[in-house]
Amino acid sequence: MPYVNIKITKEGATPEQKAQLIQGATQLLIDVLGKNPRTTVVVIDEVATDNWGIGGETVTSLRKRA
Amino acid sequence: MPYVNIKITKEGATPEQKAQLIQGATQLLIDVLGKNPRTTVVVIDEVATDNWGIGGETVTSLRKRA
Amino acid sequence: MPYVNIKITKEGATPEQKAQLIQGATQLLIDVLGKNPRTTVVVIDEVATDNWGIGGETVTSLRKRA
Amino acid sequence: MPYVNIKITKEGATPEQKAQLIQGATQLLIDVLGKNPRTTVVVIDEVATDNWGIGGETVTSLRKRA
Amino acid sequence: MPYVNIKITKEGATPEQKAQLIQGATQLLIDVLGKNPRTTVVVIDEVATDNWGIGGETVTSLRKRA
Amino acid sequence: MPYVNIKITKEGATPEQKAQLIQGATQLLIDVLGKNPRTTVVVIDEVATDNWGIGGETVTSLRKRA
Repeated sequence: MPYVNIKITKEGATPEQKAQLIQGATQLLIDVLGKNPRTTVVVIDEVATDNWGIGGETVTSLRKRA
Repeated sequence: MPYVNIKITKEGATPEQKAQLIQGATQLLIDVLGKNPRTTVVVIDEVATDNWGIGGETVTSLRKRA
Repeated sequence: MPYVNIKITKEGATPEQKAQLIQGATQLLIDVLGKNPRTTVVVIDEVATDNWGIGGETVTSLRKRA
Repeated sequence: MPYVNIKITKEGATPEQKAQLIQGATQLLIDVLGKNPRTTVVVIDEVATDNWGIGGETVTSLRKRA
Repeated sequence: MPYVNIKITKEGATPEQKAQLIQGATQLLIDVLGKNPRTTVVVIDEVATDNWGIGGETVTSLRKRA
Repeated sequence: MPYVNIKITKEGATPEQKAQLIQGATQLLIDVLGKNPRTTVVVIDEVATDNWGIGGETVTSLRKRA
């Protein structure tokens, strides 16, 4: 019955990679806690780099400096 | 003062349907707990079917098999 | 497949009231969007009044003035 | 290590304003709790006015009446 | 930089199991997307069974029938 | 109308500090975006150090090593 929300910056994750995140997170809940995959929900949010900050700075700005 | 977040897959909910969800969720909090609608916030997130998983599989993939 | 999160202040909602919120939110998604209740998840968070603010003030403080 | 999520309606916040929200929220956690900015994450969600409700009504509808 | 939120019912997950969820979710983001673990945050919410619903029913009620 | 969620580890934030977070976050939205404080909601979640991970490790474990 778990609910997993994965937030990542929107920087080109493919449908295949997102499917792997969903598969992997669901498997993790099975492996560690024996949860039923049929009612395990995983939602991925892809966030624009202008809208994500770390260290007080947007990722857009961090990427420019990198 | 409640805050309600409704996450659904992005599959064509109309503005009218979303208005009904907002009206209905707000009414539910009035009916059950007597909450003040003026400060009740409802936020609807529509999530791409590639980004929503259940049973370890994306909804995109589930819809193809259906 | 929807996921609904209801946040309310922790001020004595009973198990029966919480069951009504869960039942009502699930029904709302059936009525408005025809969603399958079997995979509709509702999570209620009860938040201490010290941890909830509106108008820049905690609910604890608002309740004292009321 | 804090995580801050700011949800606003999508009504034209500029990259500069979003950078200010990120900078300001990070500084707030430093000032009040002495948190390390290097691991403070801020995520801004911009929500369509059709998808945000208050008082049981969408913001789209409120804006029309204003 | 990802942020992962795992919500499970509060039914006795041990500190070791929670550490495994955190380790596994962080590793998943490394494996699939090459994300930096140093800024990957995982937050686990344990939710009372009275506050979690599926199929329109609380988990408390489902457990009694099981 | 904004909604702000601040997640911190549960390590002794006082009611006064939480009130400052609420006041400061509300003011930030006024200053940057001119938002109405009367409908600005701030919710603080305090998360047990066993339930918060960074770098693949729980904060409980990080604190022991510090």
